Amino acid sequence: MSDRDDIDALIELMARLPGLGPRSARRAVLHLVRKRGSLLTPLAELTQKVADSARECLNCGNVGTSDICHICRDERRATGLLCIVEDVADLWAMERSGQFIGRYHVLGGTLSALGNVGPEELRIPKLVERVAAEEITEVILALNATIDGQTTAHYIADALEGRVTLSSLAQGVPIGGELDYLDDGTITAALTARKRL
Amino acid sequence: MSDRDDIDALIELMARLPGLGPRSARRAVLHLVRKRGSLLTPLAELTQKVADSARECLNCGNVGTSDICHICRDERRATGLLCIVEDVADLWAMERSGQFIGRYHVLGGTLSALGNVGPEELRIPKLVERVAAEEITEVILALNATIDGQTTAHYIADALEGRVTLSSLAQGVPIGGELDYLDDGTITAALTARKRL
Repeated sequence: MSDRDDIDALIELMARLPGLGPRSARRAVLHLVRKRGSLLTPLAELTQKVADSARECLNCGNVGTSDICHICRDERRATGLLCIVEDVADLWAMERSGQFIGRYHVLGGTLSALGNVGPEELRIPKLVERVAAEEITEVILALNATIDGQTTAHYIADALEGRVTLSSLAQGVPIGGELDYLDDGTITAALTARKRL
Repeated sequence: MSDRDDIDALIELMARLPGLGPRSARRAVLHLVRKRGSLLTPLAELTQKVADSARECLNCGNVGTSDICHICRDERRATGLLCIVEDVADLWAMERSGQFIGRYHVLGGTLSALGNVGPEELRIPKLVERVAAEEITEVILALNATIDGQTTAHYIADALEGRVTLSSLAQGVPIGGELDYLDDGTITAALTARKRL
């Protein structure tokens, strides 16, 4: 009866993306249909390409289009530094800063007793293996400052103790942050870790 | 150097959708890559299908997959009622209510002196043609209650005067609306159009 079946199905799929609901998915699809040449057709081609080629790096868990990602392949990044992040999004955020010159290890989540997530689910055995195989000298724990993130950091610190230098990201006032808008925990952390000028 | 070119390009395209920015596009694409089987592959197929088949109805401007949309083809909807909306999204909103049994005419915008949008840009000539050809007896103006929307409504009312019965959507308190949160204009309109019980 309707000739909108494909369009409706596309709206339904788009509504399942994080950050989009039914209303914004409708708006997005209408926008796509209007900009067919400049947006919809390229999007169709790219999603197909990515669906065919995207994969997790077998070494670090980064998302790319090859079995071993460009960071793990890059010999210049074999600096003995390994940055541990929870998620690929965190890895990308670190890369955007352009400051880190080592390699990464993506855990794929945090330990969680409630969620029944143990070390085996988290690429932690692979981490221990890499620390030996890649001659890692320093492990930087760049996990989120949440309770689960910190629990996971402690677990990893225990597992690697004695084998490598361990460090974690500094905690304090974010650049551009206003004290008035910061939570007590951040202010306490910033005060505790204050720097002499 | 990077093997994320396709993924980056996809993120950039997604960020151009209304309601998504660079950050939410990244989140959406990571989500897609993780749910490749259930989300990314179907999305790739559907966007391609829609890119191939989506078109505007030559008669009313609705978006569908055929030259004449299912509403315009449905003889049961040749009731002599024609509902005029600004945008396809408005048509879909009317259809969701399931109350309207006539056909639609999508203007594709509103008249705007500043934006240099005249009647010719708006499918208004086609409207005048349809009113004669489809034996329309009543035209319902379902335009947005904005200044441009109301200007356009007046223009169309002038153009069709004497040929059809004209009506517009009632204005008043929305269902579930709380007076405290309504603007003065809506309360004034609701008071002026008050109904005897």
